[in-house]
Amino acid sequence: MFERDFLPGSDRGFRNRFYRLAFHHDSPGERNFDLWLIVAILASVAVVILDSVPGVKSRWHEALYVAEWVFTVLFTIEYAMRLWAVRRPLRYATSFFGIIDLLAFLPTYLSLLLIGSNYLTVVRVLRLLRVFRVLKLVEYSSEAGLLVDALLRSRRKIFVFISTLMTIVIIFGALMYVIEGPEHGFTSIPTAMYWAVVTMATVGFGDIAPITPLGRLITSVLILIGYSIIAVPTGIYTAELASSLRPRRRNVRCTECSLAEHEVDAWHCRRCGRCLPDEAAGS
Amino acid sequence: MFERDFLPGSDRGFRNRFYRLAFHHDSPGERNFDLWLIVAILASVAVVILDSVPGVKSRWHEALYVAEWVFTVLFTIEYAMRLWAVRRPLRYATSFFGIIDLLAFLPTYLSLLLIGSNYLTVVRVLRLLRVFRVLKLVEYSSEAGLLVDALLRSRRKIFVFISTLMTIVIIFGALMYVIEGPEHGFTSIPTAMYWAVVTMATVGFGDIAPITPLGRLITSVLILIGYSIIAVPTGIYTAELASSLRPRRRNVRCTECSLAEHEVDAWHCRRCGRCLPDEAAGS
Amino acid sequence: MFERDFLPGSDRGFRNRFYRLAFHHDSPGERNFDLWLIVAILASVAVVILDSVPGVKSRWHEALYVAEWVFTVLFTIEYAMRLWAVRRPLRYATSFFGIIDLLAFLPTYLSLLLIGSNYLTVVRVLRLLRVFRVLKLVEYSSEAGLLVDALLRSRRKIFVFISTLMTIVIIFGALMYVIEGPEHGFTSIPTAMYWAVVTMATVGFGDIAPITPLGRLITSVLILIGYSIIAVPTGIYTAELASSLRPRRRNVRCTECSLAEHEVDAWHCRRCGRCLPDEAAGS
Amino acid sequence: MFERDFLPGSDRGFRNRFYRLAFHHDSPGERNFDLWLIVAILASVAVVILDSVPGVKSRWHEALYVAEWVFTVLFTIEYAMRLWAVRRPLRYATSFFGIIDLLAFLPTYLSLLLIGSNYLTVVRVLRLLRVFRVLKLVEYSSEAGLLVDALLRSRRKIFVFISTLMTIVIIFGALMYVIEGPEHGFTSIPTAMYWAVVTMATVGFGDIAPITPLGRLITSVLILIGYSIIAVPTGIYTAELASSLRPRRRNVRCTECSLAEHEVDAWHCRRCGRCLPDEAAGS
Repeated sequence: MFERDFLPGSDRGFRNRFYRLAFHHDSPGERNFDLWLIVAILASVAVVILDSVPGVKSRWHEALYVAEWVFTVLFTIEYAMRLWAVRRPLRYATSFFGIIDLLAFLPTYLSLLLIGSNYLTVVRVLRLLRVFRVLKLVEYSSEAGLLVDALLRSRRKIFVFISTLMTIVIIFGALMYVIEGPEHGFTSIPTAMYWAVVTMATVGFGDIAPITPLGRLITSVLILIGYSIIAVPTGIYTAELASSLRPRRRNVRCTECSLAEHEVDAWHCRRCGRCLPDEAAGS
Repeated sequence: MFERDFLPGSDRGFRNRFYRLAFHHDSPGERNFDLWLIVAILASVAVVILDSVPGVKSRWHEALYVAEWVFTVLFTIEYAMRLWAVRRPLRYATSFFGIIDLLAFLPTYLSLLLIGSNYLTVVRVLRLLRVFRVLKLVEYSSEAGLLVDALLRSRRKIFVFISTLMTIVIIFGALMYVIEGPEHGFTSIPTAMYWAVVTMATVGFGDIAPITPLGRLITSVLILIGYSIIAVPTGIYTAELASSLRPRRRNVRCTECSLAEHEVDAWHCRRCGRCLPDEAAGS
Repeated sequence: MFERDFLPGSDRGFRNRFYRLAFHHDSPGERNFDLWLIVAILASVAVVILDSVPGVKSRWHEALYVAEWVFTVLFTIEYAMRLWAVRRPLRYATSFFGIIDLLAFLPTYLSLLLIGSNYLTVVRVLRLLRVFRVLKLVEYSSEAGLLVDALLRSRRKIFVFISTLMTIVIIFGALMYVIEGPEHGFTSIPTAMYWAVVTMATVGFGDIAPITPLGRLITSVLILIGYSIIAVPTGIYTAELASSLRPRRRNVRCTECSLAEHEVDAWHCRRCGRCLPDEAAGS
Repeated sequence: MFERDFLPGSDRGFRNRFYRLAFHHDSPGERNFDLWLIVAILASVAVVILDSVPGVKSRWHEALYVAEWVFTVLFTIEYAMRLWAVRRPLRYATSFFGIIDLLAFLPTYLSLLLIGSNYLTVVRVLRLLRVFRVLKLVEYSSEAGLLVDALLRSRRKIFVFISTLMTIVIIFGALMYVIEGPEHGFTSIPTAMYWAVVTMATVGFGDIAPITPLGRLITSVLILIGYSIIAVPTGIYTAELASSLRPRRRNVRCTECSLAEHEVDAWHCRRCGRCLPDEAAGS
């Protein structure tokens, strides 16, 4: 996963220097490269976004079109140089960020062939994910790591939670489809399930809303269920995060006074001063 | 509750083998049976859902009708075999999952008699609950157990909370019914109570919304109350969950005064001062 | 506050027995009285609610009118007997629950004089608060006490929080009033403040919604602020509740081994077994 | 930041007395000044708000206009006296609260020149921030400090969180723009991003809502993502707050190896085993 895992294609010369610029993030020069790359990525995403605004498009379309091609060529060159700089280009090209790098410029070329395909716009926006390459490795990685760790450790609990949620959504969706029916906007069970998700998660667009008294009663029940169980993911996550922030103890017992649970960096028993035994039983 | 509690009708032969397939979840073969059962359940629910979409129904109705009957026959055979495999069929038939199993195929037969009854659709969807039979016993049971335990232990607090909530809902419902009145959509106190639930839980469909300045002021107060007390169930649940994850006491009993549950690092009984026995039984 | 504080008017006889029925909640007979009182209160509130539904009112108005008067007479008799049973009737009549008891039947008599006053409906619903008299003293009081305690202890933090919230609401309200203006529904600063409360608390009725790009940008900022600080009350409350659930320690130091912080019920030091000194310094 | 940092211009006389009145908050007289200042600020903000209500404006415009000028003159005099009372007026004038004090009356004078500029209304409302000068220094400062501290310590985690949120918003915004298109209200990517913020944060105005089945499916996914990660800021904040409330280490330094911060019950240094000194410096 870590980009540093790609070995450089050469030990010195420009090829090695570009490798370090593109894949390392330590020296000031390498950080400058990262900074400019982030600026280019954000600017190119801004171009895509602005091009979708009718007022802006009608006036600045040529400028935005040129800017899009400038960024595309830049990203193409960068991609080619990355391929050239690493020892095993194929391994890079098939890695997660290798594919994201490819998707950053490919859609613009494809748009010459497939005129009018709107979906390429979405693919273009995906180049935003390239920012995370830099973010991941530098300053915020330990913070993000803490958050993601807590998320991963609670993934089984979250799976159980999402399963329960989906079951409630399907059952209440079917119920509301039968009670309210197509004449009140609940045109099918999938539509009613969409409404149940929107309602349980307390979004409540109001594009579909119950009208019959029974439907409103069941809606109130559904809302109270949603309101009660919104506590569950928060509780799961908070408890996990709190236990990550709590200092871990070594599970070792003092041979003199048999006091258990010492701090991770403790050499001597904190009660009797005796040296702690070496073998640290896993946490 | 646990399905393993049903004793097998026979100790060996096909009857015992089917019993193990249907009610146990340990060997690869038993897990394969579970997997195929889940697939069949999800597919049959998908058939019910798809049949409610007008576009799909008009084109694929025959195929869906056939699929529904195939699943119904399968579930009927499975139910009959389960009845045959257990020692006391009646006890199985009246258990929670026995009834769910019956409801999985009964509505389709009933639909031949009661043509056009929409409510049978909802009953059909209930077969989704059969998935939990498998989920319950296998991998995720301890995770789910933890979540449900914390929920159960906080049930009295949640009851107090829901009572307070309902009182606020009724009082604000009556208030808004009087202030806004039927001409602004608050056609009755139950309708206004439905609105109060939708508002307090921050769903806010917008199908009914206050228009008078006084009504809007009271709505703001109601929202602030809801916003403040949404912290309560989350707090209850998180605190319960955190206390489940916290280290328990040593489960050791004093030989002198038989006081149980001492702190992890205790050597002497905190009541009589006698030395505690060494062996610490794990929690 | 506690109703037991009212002294009985007589030490024995029917007067004392009614006093115990009405104000105590211990013996089976007293609990039966509570139960029937709760049933009567809930039924009378149901009558008020049902009377507001047009369909029900047109058909069952006479029955509901009679029921309302039956409950009113019952509550009047009960109130009179409570006044008669306590030693100092005036102190009871001016207590919180004394006023609630009075409000339970007064509006029905007033409705004979002030025909058509809708506000009496709300006062009638307030009789629901009488239920809390019973709830307060019996089973759920320690649970509710825990919740309310945590709420009270965090009241200063919540005051700071609400002040910040109101400042944000006023400033964003004024901002949106200027940007969107009356033509998009933001007819005055109070209206825009109502909208800001509805938006920050993630209710989002949609009766008023921004239309200009700048207004939508500011709305997004407001929503992100609201989304970020919704964590604050939950965090405050959860932390307070978790610290209430944690076992308190006695702040006493062992004279032998000077180990501090023993459990509340500890007599002997848990490390050296020596008797702990008597004086317990406050927590 | 603290206003006490401004030195008084004189050690005694009226100038020093006004200095103490305006910048200190200790004696009853100084608190009275604060109280009247808060009343004047709140009243002047109320005037601005009331003046925006069409019904009020048409009837009371003259009175509100006079009140606005009375407050403006008062604030001008107060500002001038503050400038005169401190030793270095320029440092006060360029401080945060100095600018807020200036903005409290400047817009009213500017409104004589720039007739009809609505934006001055917003600037006028900013005078509300002056209330925080008083709040900051008095009773609630330690409570607010605790809340803000926890917020500051979690700012890096919150930055990571907001970055992730914005990425999801941009990608789902682009996706919905392509799928639903301008004919269903998603007129541009920025509009779709506004919709994604409104949806993820569970506000859900309903002014824009998906209509195509695919759009509704993606909306459900977006809502579930939002519902899952709303736990994250709450978790971050609660964990930080809980760790502020948790007991700190003993701030004692080992005489041998000078390792600081030992556990509350430690007698010996955990690194070198030497006895720790007795005196426990408070946390």
